[in-house]
Amino acid sequence: MPAPLIVALAGGVGGAKLAEGLQAHLGARLTVVVNTADDCDRHGLRVMPDHDTVLYTLAGIEQAALGWGIEGDTHAVMNQLGVYGEPTWFSLGDRDLALHIARAAALRRGDRPTEACLAAQRALGLAARILPMTDSPVATAVETDDGWLEFQEYFVHRRQEPEVRGLRFDGLEAARPTPEVAAALEEATAIVIGPSNPLVSIGPILAVPRMRDRLAAARGRGVPVAAVSPIIGGRALKGPADRMLASLGHESSALGVARLYADLVDLFVLDDADAELAPEIEALGLRTLVTDTVMGDDASRARLAGAVLEALEPT
Amino acid sequence: MPAPLIVALAGGVGGAKLAEGLQAHLGARLTVVVNTADDCDRHGLRVMPDHDTVLYTLAGIEQAALGWGIEGDTHAVMNQLGVYGEPTWFSLGDRDLALHIARAAALRRGDRPTEACLAAQRALGLAARILPMTDSPVATAVETDDGWLEFQEYFVHRRQEPEVRGLRFDGLEAARPTPEVAAALEEATAIVIGPSNPLVSIGPILAVPRMRDRLAAARGRGVPVAAVSPIIGGRALKGPADRMLASLGHESSALGVARLYADLVDLFVLDDADAELAPEIEALGLRTLVTDTVMGDDASRARLAGAVLEALEPT
Repeated sequence: MPAPLIVALAGGVGGAKLAEGLQAHLGARLTVVVNTADDCDRHGLRVMPDHDTVLYTLAGIEQAALGWGIEGDTHAVMNQLGVYGEPTWFSLGDRDLALHIARAAALRRGDRPTEACLAAQRALGLAARILPMTDSPVATAVETDDGWLEFQEYFVHRRQEPEVRGLRFDGLEAARPTPEVAAALEEATAIVIGPSNPLVSIGPILAVPRMRDRLAAARGRGVPVAAVSPIIGGRALKGPADRMLASLGHESSALGVARLYADLVDLFVLDDADAELAPEIEALGLRTLVTDTVMGDDASRARLAGAVLEALEPT
Repeated sequence: MPAPLIVALAGGVGGAKLAEGLQAHLGARLTVVVNTADDCDRHGLRVMPDHDTVLYTLAGIEQAALGWGIEGDTHAVMNQLGVYGEPTWFSLGDRDLALHIARAAALRRGDRPTEACLAAQRALGLAARILPMTDSPVATAVETDDGWLEFQEYFVHRRQEPEVRGLRFDGLEAARPTPEVAAALEEATAIVIGPSNPLVSIGPILAVPRMRDRLAAARGRGVPVAAVSPIIGGRALKGPADRMLASLGHESSALGVARLYADLVDLFVLDDADAELAPEIEALGLRTLVTDTVMGDDASRARLAGAVLEALEPT
């Protein structure tokens, strides 16, 4: 049997935790494709929240309490930016800012986002590889009762409080999977959709033109695809996925998520707490794995990843 | 007698110290025009060393031992930029970086450099006003035995060690004094050339097309112009002015500096240590003020500034 080459799709915190578990098993045989539709310009610097959350998590330096940023980071620059009248609600630590500065400089020198991100990953000594879903700019906008909001305005500034009435991914039609993403999907022996928000994290990845075709082609070659539910007992462990599913007409449950992925995946992984939903999910034509999907520490991340990898092995 | 409106021309440390002394006497009636030919892009951010040295000095937060940067600043970002492979020889502190980030962001939003600098000055509560000599990019290049070097490469990275064979100010022909500089010179009741390097700090300011015409026009209206020697006993207190004067064929002395400014100034200020040069300087057609020009502390800065202002008053 050839060594597995796993492609994981991830947004921020939840996907990053599963990616860390997968990296513990796979090292360099793991490629994580991250959502870039949350990326934004702050203070003239390019910030890539999902890439960077996965980066810091795989490097083992993520701010544990929040899941993003760097543990123990200082905020000297941000405090002084406030003196100069720059908005400070999107708080970036000093060491975190160094990444945004270095990456913005690389982009201005002509590097593609993928190249700039890979350089940062090498600098932090990552075993696995993280690929932006596309090198083209894509920007999520969120429709609320106050009108359309830029994603981070909704997510960070307004703390996800407004009810989400609609979503739009500007730039998506012109976006394409990068050559690196295309090659990773070509070589993959299995694909894992992480427990990230299915609408604003996994959604944009899957909506990149030709991305679904490439996933379908992989499945056509017998490559199994798994998805891990980000919803446990009807709730998202972190973030607004549960309320967003409900306000956009989906069921806020592992079953609701499984319905969104039904035509894409073979294996659906749900938490023990949702075991009673397994028959309905199987009725959609999916295999299920019912297990503990809460990833509180490194050991539980590796355990869940191991269970998913095992369930994906050819029987 | 109308309240004096003083325009000072300045480069970095020496000019900044005199400017601080002048600000103590004049407050908002002081405008400092700074050299911008040392400005450079670092990590995709615009750094304006002379403006910022004057800014921090007038704000009372300059790093006393070095004369540039902010006292007690930390270096978390720069250390991390090194991890990402960015060159770190041009060390920028965290709070200092905030200025470069905020200003670069303002420039990308379409502000002129002058506007971005004035905003930073307001943020730090400056009494006086600092104006870049021009809003156009000008870049000093230094000819050495190793060829032409970008100014900061010569000044910081190579620690001013290479012998200077020539100077070039790229972009100078297209540069013009800003409307703010033109207006300040129009309204000035006296002009003071600070004790900065006459070749690479004051030189570019005077070489901006139409700048000398505007100074000459002011003198034609009876506005007196003073210059303070940056050379004491044949040596520069800081920086390479003495060696640069010598290697470019000038005398490294107060007299050598006076010769460079002879057609521009009425009053030449030199140190007690150089009193014996006063007759030769007067023979150039200049009045002289011989006094203590070493500005070790705030009191000595204010004392020198007061002596210069007094010597400039109509007799």
